Amino acid sequence: MVHVIRTFDRPATDLVERIKQYPPSTLHEAQGRTGALTSRIKPIYPGMRACGPAFTVSCHPGDNMMLITAISLAKPGDILIVSAGDHPEQGGFGEVLATACVAKGLAGLVTDAGVRDGPAIRNTGYQVFSLGLCMKGTVKETLGTINQPIVIGGIAVRPGDIISADDDGVVIVPKENIADVCAKSAAREDKEASVMKALKAGGDILELSGIGKVLESKGCTFS
Amino acid sequence: MVHVIRTFDRPATDLVERIKQYPPSTLHEAQGRTGALTSRIKPIYPGMRACGPAFTVSCHPGDNMMLITAISLAKPGDILIVSAGDHPEQGGFGEVLATACVAKGLAGLVTDAGVRDGPAIRNTGYQVFSLGLCMKGTVKETLGTINQPIVIGGIAVRPGDIISADDDGVVIVPKENIADVCAKSAAREDKEASVMKALKAGGDILELSGIGKVLESKGCTFS
Amino acid sequence: MVHVIRTFDRPATDLVERIKQYPPSTLHEAQGRTGALTSRIKPIYPGMRACGPAFTVSCHPGDNMMLITAISLAKPGDILIVSAGDHPEQGGFGEVLATACVAKGLAGLVTDAGVRDGPAIRNTGYQVFSLGLCMKGTVKETLGTINQPIVIGGIAVRPGDIISADDDGVVIVPKENIADVCAKSAAREDKEASVMKALKAGGDILELSGIGKVLESKGCTFS
Amino acid sequence: MVHVIRTFDRPATDLVERIKQYPPSTLHEAQGRTGALTSRIKPIYPGMRACGPAFTVSCHPGDNMMLITAISLAKPGDILIVSAGDHPEQGGFGEVLATACVAKGLAGLVTDAGVRDGPAIRNTGYQVFSLGLCMKGTVKETLGTINQPIVIGGIAVRPGDIISADDDGVVIVPKENIADVCAKSAAREDKEASVMKALKAGGDILELSGIGKVLESKGCTFS
Amino acid sequence: MVHVIRTFDRPATDLVERIKQYPPSTLHEAQGRTGALTSRIKPIYPGMRACGPAFTVSCHPGDNMMLITAISLAKPGDILIVSAGDHPEQGGFGEVLATACVAKGLAGLVTDAGVRDGPAIRNTGYQVFSLGLCMKGTVKETLGTINQPIVIGGIAVRPGDIISADDDGVVIVPKENIADVCAKSAAREDKEASVMKALKAGGDILELSGIGKVLESKGCTFS
Amino acid sequence: MVHVIRTFDRPATDLVERIKQYPPSTLHEAQGRTGALTSRIKPIYPGMRACGPAFTVSCHPGDNMMLITAISLAKPGDILIVSAGDHPEQGGFGEVLATACVAKGLAGLVTDAGVRDGPAIRNTGYQVFSLGLCMKGTVKETLGTINQPIVIGGIAVRPGDIISADDDGVVIVPKENIADVCAKSAAREDKEASVMKALKAGGDILELSGIGKVLESKGCTFS
Repeated sequence: MVHVIRTFDRPATDLVERIKQYPPSTLHEAQGRTGALTSRIKPIYPGMRACGPAFTVSCHPGDNMMLITAISLAKPGDILIVSAGDHPEQGGFGEVLATACVAKGLAGLVTDAGVRDGPAIRNTGYQVFSLGLCMKGTVKETLGTINQPIVIGGIAVRPGDIISADDDGVVIVPKENIADVCAKSAAREDKEASVMKALKAGGDILELSGIGKVLESKGCTFS
Repeated sequence: MVHVIRTFDRPATDLVERIKQYPPSTLHEAQGRTGALTSRIKPIYPGMRACGPAFTVSCHPGDNMMLITAISLAKPGDILIVSAGDHPEQGGFGEVLATACVAKGLAGLVTDAGVRDGPAIRNTGYQVFSLGLCMKGTVKETLGTINQPIVIGGIAVRPGDIISADDDGVVIVPKENIADVCAKSAAREDKEASVMKALKAGGDILELSGIGKVLESKGCTFS
Repeated sequence: MVHVIRTFDRPATDLVERIKQYPPSTLHEAQGRTGALTSRIKPIYPGMRACGPAFTVSCHPGDNMMLITAISLAKPGDILIVSAGDHPEQGGFGEVLATACVAKGLAGLVTDAGVRDGPAIRNTGYQVFSLGLCMKGTVKETLGTINQPIVIGGIAVRPGDIISADDDGVVIVPKENIADVCAKSAAREDKEASVMKALKAGGDILELSGIGKVLESKGCTFS
Repeated sequence: MVHVIRTFDRPATDLVERIKQYPPSTLHEAQGRTGALTSRIKPIYPGMRACGPAFTVSCHPGDNMMLITAISLAKPGDILIVSAGDHPEQGGFGEVLATACVAKGLAGLVTDAGVRDGPAIRNTGYQVFSLGLCMKGTVKETLGTINQPIVIGGIAVRPGDIISADDDGVVIVPKENIADVCAKSAAREDKEASVMKALKAGGDILELSGIGKVLESKGCTFS
Repeated sequence: MVHVIRTFDRPATDLVERIKQYPPSTLHEAQGRTGALTSRIKPIYPGMRACGPAFTVSCHPGDNMMLITAISLAKPGDILIVSAGDHPEQGGFGEVLATACVAKGLAGLVTDAGVRDGPAIRNTGYQVFSLGLCMKGTVKETLGTINQPIVIGGIAVRPGDIISADDDGVVIVPKENIADVCAKSAAREDKEASVMKALKAGGDILELSGIGKVLESKGCTFS
Repeated sequence: MVHVIRTFDRPATDLVERIKQYPPSTLHEAQGRTGALTSRIKPIYPGMRACGPAFTVSCHPGDNMMLITAISLAKPGDILIVSAGDHPEQGGFGEVLATACVAKGLAGLVTDAGVRDGPAIRNTGYQVFSLGLCMKGTVKETLGTINQPIVIGGIAVRPGDIISADDDGVVIVPKENIADVCAKSAAREDKEASVMKALKAGGDILELSGIGKVLESKGCTFS
């Protein structure tokens, strides 16, 4: 069995730049309401944002050995996404590792564990999404995998899939869908901008959204 | 069965203005430690505040059709309060609907679901209290009710009851009690101000709170 | 049975000053990855910090009588640490009690309950770590204990043990270990500073952390 | 304020006998998918069942004084339904109180607390639905209410409403709807019996349920 | 987009028969401690067991339309595995559907929702694994997918993968690994039988497990 | 640092035999409502019971090396009590280890982890209390401690303290209090037997419990 796959195909740079324009919630809707991780995975401080290709890691719970290995192998712009057992009571990532990530130009970390050194991580400028802050240290004893498919937060992720994250949480866009999802996101943003303009001008949401007709067709009764 | 009741008696404007002076925790104590929703319902960003009459909505989990309908029917100053199954993994309210609410002059939203577009909602200035941020989209398929009694966060709410919310969470004041609760809140604030003044002057909390005598009556032993 | 022990040996002032230099996560590692409370106990607003000797309190859930008593008996610099049943739906500490604590020069509060009056507490400058904000009031009916050993957040705490807390959560350092933990913390900080300097200069985390050799000894396979 | 209302109108005996024929899930559907408490409230051992009018109690969390009072006032066939803060870590009901309930001919207990003496309660034959078993004792210090409307498990309950419970959980039928819900339950059971007969004879669920046509109208695509 | 894939390659019958001999925990270890769903998915009554190929279904939370469709399309021996949002407060499967499944010779149901009609399902003899019992009904409004890859309980599942479940929970064995996992399971059972025989004869677990040497190599100290 | 303390003072056999007569809930009340672990720790099947001296173990989460070591060192009648991070998603104890425990005459296991091989453990007759059943395997990599004080389920436990457990959960009686708690338990049982006899004869619980007078003194109002 191979534990570590050193490399994988990353999406073209222009595609990554293009998808960065859209917030995660728009991408999620644009691809048919799929790809959102559990909302329990959130930025460690409000306002954090990240978008880039997934560098996938699977750690034994309470063990950060493969995460350290991943930092060494990842490329600028990558987002580390680490499945570690859906357990917040562990903090296998902190100031030292955040410093390493920033030095390497990585774009962020997503994990179903906790992380620690919250204030210091914020100072490094690194963008971290986790189950919260937890100081409990981890060991370096058990092998896991790198750049193999993982499941995290209820979603299957492959290396090179796009990760996009902000205060709303984290969404995965499969790498083969990027262009299509960008096109649909742009259309969605245009439509929403138009609706919001009409709302500000006094338009009625029932009419603008088309829900009025749906209510009628469902037999909604009023008094 | 009637799904939607278009209107209801709102409390007099001066009563609403009067109750806005008191924070939720004071109102909760003033009415005998009742009316507080589960503390899991919180502002989506610290510092949000809202106070106004309840416009009640009941949605099927994962469906926001009745919430959209409610926005169309609510009046300036109303707070939408939406029971949607006590489930955070849904985001049936976001930037577009927040824009609609602001355009109509609504005062806030309280829901036992998640909401999405957190940063954008904050920019609209709309005051939102929920189980958190979640980008997962909803459908528009199943009818619910509007302006009928609901239960949310462990509390029964009727249209026109007062909702007051801040970082401490959300409290409901039954509409027939507003004047009484305001009077008791004012008395409570006066008393607390006096105690805090005495504390700052070096007074002892055991004496000022009267707990010293309670301890004695309970047989508290010291060493 | 004695309920209240009025006093206990506090660590020497210079030891307390010395341990204040290290963040909780460093102390936790320095003492062998022990002493961290559940990460669910967190500052009520990001950025709060506290360090000082534990003044231990055990309250019946939903009852704050012993907490009030404790405020009266605690000394400047003490941190109240209150076991109240690991239940967030109670708010037995708010603006009045925070005012009392500040007036007495106490250094903070740690509790496995909720607290209320979040915005007002923040204004007092008091440092509070809890299961969250909850406005639900408490009664003053049932005796508990003061300055006897307690368990909170999965950790046993004795009066006079050091409590250190920040955004990462809360850690306990047994009073007899303070000097030793400070020494180990200093060594750890030195080592981490050196590693971070090397990382910023382009060093490889696998080599700097020594994990490269561990991977090899574990039989890690690469492709 | 009145704490205890001694009596209330109970539904007619023949209505209670009639509704006992239908399991809770059938009643829930028959009244339009409403009235089900959170599924976390369950029998303490599989196989327990109860049906009867609600005798409502509101207790302070961790306090069973009003529950004891309620046992004294309830009538044969009543089901005690006790709101106690949605907290499983309390056991304010055990063998002695179950013995009292059985002696009085009460029909069951529903609570959002824990209960204790599980094996002994089972021996008494009393039917108990709770958040689980928990031995932690309660105090008798704080007044609550009896036979006033309560909210429990997300549902509002008034004295005299019908409670029906089995392994599936607990449902409330408003007292004014009993006859109507029974009629609809009977119709539902007849229809389900007929469908199940057809299924056993090899019928297709898509056709028997009418879902085949719904799929078509929704645009479901097959490959 | 295709919603429903009618068919897929099922593993050979003899492979299915062979893997049925091993309990889920053995299969999980034999394939390198992988494939176990969250332990929150459990049999609705102790003692239930199921093993067979996965027939995968993805439902909108609170909607059982695709589950009904799946029953119509599945083949004898199949196990329906239904992702429905990891939400226990829904009961979209009950006596009627269990009757349909038994009539068709299906082997079981695994879902991250609740189910209802617990006692009646048990009477049908159908084997059901879920987040628990919940009577809350579902709607039939939103399309999902059938026989496309899903994620449930933290694990990715494809149609035709083997599902094995008992009181310990549910494990997935990828279809291409069945023979290999059976061989390793047999070896593991042989080894465990031999160890258990030695234990019953008075052997020491430290020696039989080889842990004694590991302790020594780790530097374990005794007093 | 010493990891493993081989031996400790066990309570006298006659004291252990004496305390076995009382169920955990009685012991909990008799010692002033203290010592109960979180109610989430329960028998893996209803009806299990255990009572004996604590053999304390601290494991790294996801690692059962010290638990195996403990089985080798424990004495007949001991109950293994294992702190492993309050995490149910691990199964570091199963049929082989249960066989070892039974062969050595141990009296039970209490853990804040999961265990696996539920049906097989039940067949061995071993008494196991845990956070549930979970098949997920553990590693044998990280040292912990044996027979040093631990905290589990919110309670501090020392080697030699008495553990008593049944369907109600688990309680700890400090070893120095056994005789006193037995005496108080006997008195409590006598009193309860007398109350239950009176209840069966038609006595009123308000009078027999003395609550009637308490209600009066609290100002309870009736209508």
